[in-house]
Amino acid sequence: MTEDLGRAGDITTDSIIPEEATISAAFVARVPGRIAGLDFAVETFRQLDPEVEIDLLCQDGAPVDPGQSILKVKGRARAVLTAERVALNFVGHLSGIATATRAIVDAVAGTKARITCTRKTTPGLRAIEKYAVRVGGGFNHRFGLDDGILIKDNHVAVAGGITPAIERVKAAVGHMVKIEVEVDTVEQLREALAVGVDAVLLDNMDPPTLKQAVAMIDGRAIAEASGRITVESARAVAQSGVDIISAGWLTHSAPTLDVGLDIV
Amino acid sequence: MTEDLGRAGDITTDSIIPEEATISAAFVARVPGRIAGLDFAVETFRQLDPEVEIDLLCQDGAPVDPGQSILKVKGRARAVLTAERVALNFVGHLSGIATATRAIVDAVAGTKARITCTRKTTPGLRAIEKYAVRVGGGFNHRFGLDDGILIKDNHVAVAGGITPAIERVKAAVGHMVKIEVEVDTVEQLREALAVGVDAVLLDNMDPPTLKQAVAMIDGRAIAEASGRITVESARAVAQSGVDIISAGWLTHSAPTLDVGLDIV
Amino acid sequence: MTEDLGRAGDITTDSIIPEEATISAAFVARVPGRIAGLDFAVETFRQLDPEVEIDLLCQDGAPVDPGQSILKVKGRARAVLTAERVALNFVGHLSGIATATRAIVDAVAGTKARITCTRKTTPGLRAIEKYAVRVGGGFNHRFGLDDGILIKDNHVAVAGGITPAIERVKAAVGHMVKIEVEVDTVEQLREALAVGVDAVLLDNMDPPTLKQAVAMIDGRAIAEASGRITVESARAVAQSGVDIISAGWLTHSAPTLDVGLDIV
Amino acid sequence: MTEDLGRAGDITTDSIIPEEATISAAFVARVPGRIAGLDFAVETFRQLDPEVEIDLLCQDGAPVDPGQSILKVKGRARAVLTAERVALNFVGHLSGIATATRAIVDAVAGTKARITCTRKTTPGLRAIEKYAVRVGGGFNHRFGLDDGILIKDNHVAVAGGITPAIERVKAAVGHMVKIEVEVDTVEQLREALAVGVDAVLLDNMDPPTLKQAVAMIDGRAIAEASGRITVESARAVAQSGVDIISAGWLTHSAPTLDVGLDIV
Amino acid sequence: MTEDLGRAGDITTDSIIPEEATISAAFVARVPGRIAGLDFAVETFRQLDPEVEIDLLCQDGAPVDPGQSILKVKGRARAVLTAERVALNFVGHLSGIATATRAIVDAVAGTKARITCTRKTTPGLRAIEKYAVRVGGGFNHRFGLDDGILIKDNHVAVAGGITPAIERVKAAVGHMVKIEVEVDTVEQLREALAVGVDAVLLDNMDPPTLKQAVAMIDGRAIAEASGRITVESARAVAQSGVDIISAGWLTHSAPTLDVGLDIV
Amino acid sequence: MTEDLGRAGDITTDSIIPEEATISAAFVARVPGRIAGLDFAVETFRQLDPEVEIDLLCQDGAPVDPGQSILKVKGRARAVLTAERVALNFVGHLSGIATATRAIVDAVAGTKARITCTRKTTPGLRAIEKYAVRVGGGFNHRFGLDDGILIKDNHVAVAGGITPAIERVKAAVGHMVKIEVEVDTVEQLREALAVGVDAVLLDNMDPPTLKQAVAMIDGRAIAEASGRITVESARAVAQSGVDIISAGWLTHSAPTLDVGLDIV
Repeated sequence: MTEDLGRAGDITTDSIIPEEATISAAFVARVPGRIAGLDFAVETFRQLDPEVEIDLLCQDGAPVDPGQSILKVKGRARAVLTAERVALNFVGHLSGIATATRAIVDAVAGTKARITCTRKTTPGLRAIEKYAVRVGGGFNHRFGLDDGILIKDNHVAVAGGITPAIERVKAAVGHMVKIEVEVDTVEQLREALAVGVDAVLLDNMDPPTLKQAVAMIDGRAIAEASGRITVESARAVAQSGVDIISAGWLTHSAPTLDVGLDIV
Repeated sequence: MTEDLGRAGDITTDSIIPEEATISAAFVARVPGRIAGLDFAVETFRQLDPEVEIDLLCQDGAPVDPGQSILKVKGRARAVLTAERVALNFVGHLSGIATATRAIVDAVAGTKARITCTRKTTPGLRAIEKYAVRVGGGFNHRFGLDDGILIKDNHVAVAGGITPAIERVKAAVGHMVKIEVEVDTVEQLREALAVGVDAVLLDNMDPPTLKQAVAMIDGRAIAEASGRITVESARAVAQSGVDIISAGWLTHSAPTLDVGLDIV
Repeated sequence: MTEDLGRAGDITTDSIIPEEATISAAFVARVPGRIAGLDFAVETFRQLDPEVEIDLLCQDGAPVDPGQSILKVKGRARAVLTAERVALNFVGHLSGIATATRAIVDAVAGTKARITCTRKTTPGLRAIEKYAVRVGGGFNHRFGLDDGILIKDNHVAVAGGITPAIERVKAAVGHMVKIEVEVDTVEQLREALAVGVDAVLLDNMDPPTLKQAVAMIDGRAIAEASGRITVESARAVAQSGVDIISAGWLTHSAPTLDVGLDIV
Repeated sequence: MTEDLGRAGDITTDSIIPEEATISAAFVARVPGRIAGLDFAVETFRQLDPEVEIDLLCQDGAPVDPGQSILKVKGRARAVLTAERVALNFVGHLSGIATATRAIVDAVAGTKARITCTRKTTPGLRAIEKYAVRVGGGFNHRFGLDDGILIKDNHVAVAGGITPAIERVKAAVGHMVKIEVEVDTVEQLREALAVGVDAVLLDNMDPPTLKQAVAMIDGRAIAEASGRITVESARAVAQSGVDIISAGWLTHSAPTLDVGLDIV
Repeated sequence: MTEDLGRAGDITTDSIIPEEATISAAFVARVPGRIAGLDFAVETFRQLDPEVEIDLLCQDGAPVDPGQSILKVKGRARAVLTAERVALNFVGHLSGIATATRAIVDAVAGTKARITCTRKTTPGLRAIEKYAVRVGGGFNHRFGLDDGILIKDNHVAVAGGITPAIERVKAAVGHMVKIEVEVDTVEQLREALAVGVDAVLLDNMDPPTLKQAVAMIDGRAIAEASGRITVESARAVAQSGVDIISAGWLTHSAPTLDVGLDIV
Repeated sequence: MTEDLGRAGDITTDSIIPEEATISAAFVARVPGRIAGLDFAVETFRQLDPEVEIDLLCQDGAPVDPGQSILKVKGRARAVLTAERVALNFVGHLSGIATATRAIVDAVAGTKARITCTRKTTPGLRAIEKYAVRVGGGFNHRFGLDDGILIKDNHVAVAGGITPAIERVKAAVGHMVKIEVEVDTVEQLREALAVGVDAVLLDNMDPPTLKQAVAMIDGRAIAEASGRITVESARAVAQSGVDIISAGWLTHSAPTLDVGLDIV
């Protein structure tokens, strides 16, 4: 809230609305989608009015239709109007991510592929954006550089090859850390499998190549497909037999879900 | 960076890359757009390697073509690879906003209308998103609830009318604060002008109504048009003679600009 | 409280007073004045004893006479005695500002002049000192460098004149920002009005010159008088017809209001 | 600086002054006094322009005459003009305290009495206000509730007497902590000396009573006089033979020292 | 808790335990000792479940036997299991210090010597480690460099002697600050007493030398013995007649007290 | 440093040592061990004197003998003496952990067992304590509750069995997360292996049972032994064929390494 309140607070509301006035209002979806972030909305209202009454009409993850009420809030009018925009900014942003995730999850329904996000998140919001992905039915990749090994092409280039890169990692990290390596070709995949890794990131491969890669892996590692995969292209990718499909746009380019506050 | 480094830091890079290794790399645009946020990229690299050499090949606001290099970085390989994603997340997000802003600014070129953003920003990033809007040729609306009065429909509803709402504000705020009021109809506009305000937000009016409103205002207040205005619809809105066009999607729904790091 | 508690807390009180002891005490004014800052006193007591009972005997802004009780506090003796000094420091400082403000507000009663503070505040306390000014019946000028334009003599000197300074500002800032310019002479005032501004700061002018300036402005801008204006000189300044009188000493030199804590 | 810069920074300066412009300016005293806080001014300028050149023309503690230059600053014009007010607020506030302290220190010159401040400081500024007292030639009392024992009347009241209060303290605190007790009468003083303390605060006693108290103490404890002691009354108090004179107004009510920034 | 929760929280517990499940559990001592830090455990559980019911079966300072229950906690299973390790880390660390302190306090029982800790504490934990020493029956030495004077050998070396070091200190510090000086020999002690100090730290002296030092001091200063004093050697040191025995290992090397959480 | 400097800074050093005095000093080991934490010492000195010259005479991980110099520091005497204790507290604590770790690492030399620490760390210091373990030749287990799954006995109890606990985890977590389960008996181990996990924690098993467990696992999971394993007992445990030996005392009970500062 500090970002929005600044030094002088909501000077519009404080000038116009009497301190003791109360109102009832509702969050209403303007478009269809999946809701995420209601806890943040509740927390925002509570910070400004600890006594506010909030009635959640759906839970995070629920589908909503245009015009559908999401939550009702009843309390001090000043608090409700001052908190409105920040609460809506959270709900809109996170619901946008949940909605986008659900769309691609639905697209691969019936295959074994799980959808995951990446580290391409909005600065400062990674934890809550990854939460929104889970709300949408997706799974999370690494939360940061410290909770898993992902050897990328640049690492391989500096290390002088896939094999030395993997071997150095194995000598350094603890036993609870998984190791994944990015491969661009079937030759690189063969080399990675020979040294042994927990997962392979099959980068920018088309479905036939992915199918060949999955066959070569043969269960010895988790197979992750990546590279500009959209709602439209996801099903073909999933049908190649990969375990994981990762998509950066879920967190960096999903448009907000339009939700507004109506006085009731 | 803390968000990405976590408690143990970049365990992939630290395991594979020798501490003394250096590399040269470049940020390269994958698609056309406007660049914004280079200072954040520079700062990110500097935090990890204060000695890093960075060569800016363009400035914030510059147009880029696919394949065009944006900045060159030369320094400790560990620092460059560890900072890469955070630096790119900043540049991608802010360049996305600058690119979207420039598109709508170009759409109204030749009219007197200025493009502004709103308070519909990503939580925590308002100041830098508003900077990206300026980079794209837009202007900023209020930074928060405390640096300007914007009387909205909900305020009017609780206050019992436009006139009492404006009068209460005038009695309360300092002389350096501008007062804007949202109006949905020509009747509301007439009432607002009668009391006197610095600006009016003409909400969801079509171009003919806007033209009528601008005529009624006749220079006595700044005229701002708002309400789902897109790159396609902006020119017609601008030709109604309004001074300001505001658009929330510039900050909440502009997709990231695709930029990558290539070793050179 | 941290500043006062340090690392080891209130070692005097903790050594002497049993943990379960309770007391009743009152804040008592030792001199006449206006009270401000009671919320800070309440918060200070609450931080040390969430169960403390506090009875506000007056509200912020109320006049008090010597010996008059301001608030009663009943709770754990340790908490009350430990919080005493910090709570009194807040109330004394803010009441001192409110008292000073009220004195000058009363001095201009019956004129249209409003009293405002400046940015000459105690480091770190700007927001609450400006609140105390409002409690005393004054209004607030800018809260910081970012919520209004005030072009001062040094800006004009570097810009090479009043006209280019104002024009650069108009080309740069958003439509919700007011523009004020400091002028030292009637000639500068004429130039400023020709370009057009929202307000003019008439610096260090005597009442006859102010009267001449107000006539020249003729309602085209807000007229603010500034420059060592005291309780004694304020009325003559106000009678010149200016809209605003600003005074830095309200926040940087108002002496504390003497208030003490008595056990009851 | 954050308090003054807000979210959008110095929009006046940034709009008017070109990024590459440089200026030279000086802090100039408008009235006589003692300077304190130059390090804070330097730090403020450095935060905005690490390359700024600053020439200190005097040191903290130096006397200044009206019109005397205190420091010269040369650097980016934007940085200098943006930092000006915050730097001046520090120097004005702390110099005001140093000036007030010096006046009372001079008043007791030739006696053995040392001047000290109290815990009646501006919230958040205790450490630097106490520094300004030292700059003015004074000494510091406790920095907080944790670095010395001061048993006050309220403690005595709850404890049921001076003797039990002192005894409880002795049983509880470490060997590096001094114990002082406030006494209002000669009888209380006798009781305190009988139990044994490091210092006694002789509260609101007139000079003859103080003289009697000093004689009774006879070097067995440090004698501190307190209670609305002014520059005018201090000498008579000091001549009673007390070791310490404490005065709260040094930190809570000393007016700012008027210092301005002139372009040179 | 942040340190342990990281970005994604307790993924084990959240995956396995239903949100509504509740459990009862107890902290159980595995070895004998003194308990300290229960408030930190309570606070840790409360942060994760504000409704948790906690029943303290003993207080800080109580002796415990192996198998003895210390506190019972009943609440949301997720909260209890997630908070377990952090709560135990606090209790184990602080109880370890209290247990060690009590052992040496018991060793000197019947003498007048008090046991104190030093500034050799774990970074960031000084205040709570010093609390644990008090819980164990010890007293606290200085909390930091600012709440007492301790002139050490290195200060004496740079100052050019004990006498000038003490004299400089007396000229500089306020009247509420105690002065202690470290001496290694009887000659240094004689010099320190001649100038006059509040306390002397007798460093690394054997009991006969300490006895000689105590006799020379003859009540004119507090006598503190220091230097690798253990539970075994403490009694002989205490019998030399010193007032204080200080021991750094109480805070930097006391092993944790083994306490576990059992579901009941 | 704040913890040690408090509000008034190092009043001893500031009173005695002239501002311009410089000294040379060295950190000297008093006992044999492994050094860790030199970067923290360097940073502490740098914070107080950015110009200080530091000469590292060994690196983190190096063995030291009594009397051996570890680093030389040359700079402002005030800075060196003020920083001394904090710098030593870091080096002593971390070197103590590195020394303890190295002892048990040496004890299992020649076996394939790796030594790891646990989450039983000192509150607030986990990241740097885990670093010290690596310096001593050990490896790290989880950094927190969020970067790996460790299903413990309490989880199994609430879940109603090992199988449902593991299955719930597999349904919930991302593909980069490893899953370990604690087993107390061979029966539990068999059940865990049947469902499939990445690692098993063999809790409190004696070497013969561990040997049997390793045989049953037969390379299908990583085998970790845990439970009060000391330097003395570690070799027998390692010879059972386990991959990992974890020991909590490395971080919670390793005594400090005695290092002092000598002026040279």
